[in-house]
Amino acid sequence: MIERDGYPSNPNHIFLTTGASGGVSFLINMLINSPEAGILIPIPQYPLYTACLAQHSGIAIPYLLDESSEWSTSVESIEEAIQKAKKEGVVPRGLVIINPGNPTGALLDEAKQEKLVKLCEEHSLVLLADEVYQDNLHRRKTHPFTSFKKVVSRLQSPIPLISFHSISKGVTGECGRRGGYFECSNISDDVIAFMYKVVSVSLCSPVSGQIGVDCLVRPPKPGQESYELWKKETDALHAALASRTHTMAERLDRLPGVSCVNSPAALYLFPQIKLSKKAQEAAEAAGKVPDVFYSLALLDATGICVVPGSGFGQKEGEWHYRLTCLCPGVEEYVGKLEKFHLAWVEKYGTG
Amino acid sequence: MIERDGYPSNPNHIFLTTGASGGVSFLINMLINSPEAGILIPIPQYPLYTACLAQHSGIAIPYLLDESSEWSTSVESIEEAIQKAKKEGVVPRGLVIINPGNPTGALLDEAKQEKLVKLCEEHSLVLLADEVYQDNLHRRKTHPFTSFKKVVSRLQSPIPLISFHSISKGVTGECGRRGGYFECSNISDDVIAFMYKVVSVSLCSPVSGQIGVDCLVRPPKPGQESYELWKKETDALHAALASRTHTMAERLDRLPGVSCVNSPAALYLFPQIKLSKKAQEAAEAAGKVPDVFYSLALLDATGICVVPGSGFGQKEGEWHYRLTCLCPGVEEYVGKLEKFHLAWVEKYGTG
Repeated sequence: MIERDGYPSNPNHIFLTTGASGGVSFLINMLINSPEAGILIPIPQYPLYTACLAQHSGIAIPYLLDESSEWSTSVESIEEAIQKAKKEGVVPRGLVIINPGNPTGALLDEAKQEKLVKLCEEHSLVLLADEVYQDNLHRRKTHPFTSFKKVVSRLQSPIPLISFHSISKGVTGECGRRGGYFECSNISDDVIAFMYKVVSVSLCSPVSGQIGVDCLVRPPKPGQESYELWKKETDALHAALASRTHTMAERLDRLPGVSCVNSPAALYLFPQIKLSKKAQEAAEAAGKVPDVFYSLALLDATGICVVPGSGFGQKEGEWHYRLTCLCPGVEEYVGKLEKFHLAWVEKYGTG
Repeated sequence: MIERDGYPSNPNHIFLTTGASGGVSFLINMLINSPEAGILIPIPQYPLYTACLAQHSGIAIPYLLDESSEWSTSVESIEEAIQKAKKEGVVPRGLVIINPGNPTGALLDEAKQEKLVKLCEEHSLVLLADEVYQDNLHRRKTHPFTSFKKVVSRLQSPIPLISFHSISKGVTGECGRRGGYFECSNISDDVIAFMYKVVSVSLCSPVSGQIGVDCLVRPPKPGQESYELWKKETDALHAALASRTHTMAERLDRLPGVSCVNSPAALYLFPQIKLSKKAQEAAEAAGKVPDVFYSLALLDATGICVVPGSGFGQKEGEWHYRLTCLCPGVEEYVGKLEKFHLAWVEKYGTG
């Protein structure tokens, strides 16, 4: 990835995987080496991480993302989580950073990334950088993506880094082909050899996914026959995603009892919804978590499927949902969300 | 699979997987529920099983296949292995049967299958039936394939059964698409629900693999447009495989110091080679296991790549290799094997 980062990659340190998920599960399995071993994961987080930790008998060490500053990653919050874990006898082995964020759509800047690398140095953590949304950027000039590989290389940091990427996101969205890879930096040759042995048990990743990865890392270049069309289509997709995200964030944020960070990246918005006491009681009566109750009602009324915040984790007493911004016809779509929410507020109030 | 077995299948009890390997790994992970838990595996065996057991901290409980009766599965040998394991504090949880066999190419008959089902009943074992070679049959009239699903259904046995299948074998051989499935019989709904939850972490199996599975389980039927061509091609492939296997088995068996079971199924022969003291000393001097030493010399001399028997497990002091029977030009191929072996015997003798 010298084109992306300005630093070369060693092909022997790159593993092709059955989607990024396969790689994440594999690495978590590798890192959980004792019943006390834990991995730091952001809250809210894509639940793959908690699921893999549960599967491999690892301990999830949660750290909270900061909604009040655009879902930023707080070094202090991670430090606190480390201290708390250590007190409880848990050994933090790795730090998961999802950048751009899922479900938050947040994006790290380089200054923050440097701090996070230093933090990993200090606590001997393996950095697991989930960068599958690196090409879904809505405001590239003000909010560019920088890979952790680049930051670690520039700082000449010795921290072990695993960078994940996938063909499921970007503008390709070839989820069903199950293609992805992870790149290892600062991982010793004997560990690489061991990893190679273990992945070999699973035979190859799907050939169609491997072809997808090849297309992903080697897109058409200016002057090549397919470049113009590729560029035109890719730019149009990026522009549409950015515009939809912006429209939805603004309109949702204006609703009573809703606040929504206007995310600069990924495919999602993660609006917070205040749910009144009356709504919470109705949810309880229905045997549902309040944001699940809201999401199911939204689905019934509009056909729009969102994922309740409780599936990703959130601060105690807060409620969110994750909205995917891939739908065409954003006016009609956001109109339905508004109409539903206003009727909800009419029924349950906001207090 | 009512067409195959005469008994219906419940689609909710079938899981699509990333090749049979993905399913095997998943099930072994599910069955290993304590540090004492073990799984009975045949020796020789496709090393996926030992690898998955190592990965999931399970104990391999080996039982020997009987080369003297065409690599048949001996119920007594399994009984012995169970008793030995129990004495050592190991808890047998499942029995792996590879039918047709890999690397042996053996095929079970229904009478033996019934005994094995009874054995699982007696010892409360989950039967893991690896049936990925069910369509690679060389003598269908005398050696038909019967699924364990059929035997268990007919006996109305309560044993939990997992049947694995794949698009990597048969005549399709679409290994790279990573498609397979496993079918659960006599598995309770709550366990199925739990399995469904766990597999959901890995998202879907590759779409191209899923399409492959659809083609596998619903081949063209008489009267359909593609039937004639499909039937012609499929029959030709089966006939070629059967003929090659037969030719190679006969010719290898005639060589000095080689005996070879003429396997009725799968893609393999697993000839035994007697290696002289002189050959064993030469192997030791080269720092190689004797059958690895033989296989590497064969590769160097002929370009033919076989897998040493030590990779699959074999009786102490015996040596084998696994030969794949997919090559066209069998005359030339077997001629090279003969020429190499005769030169080897000239050099090292047979005693």
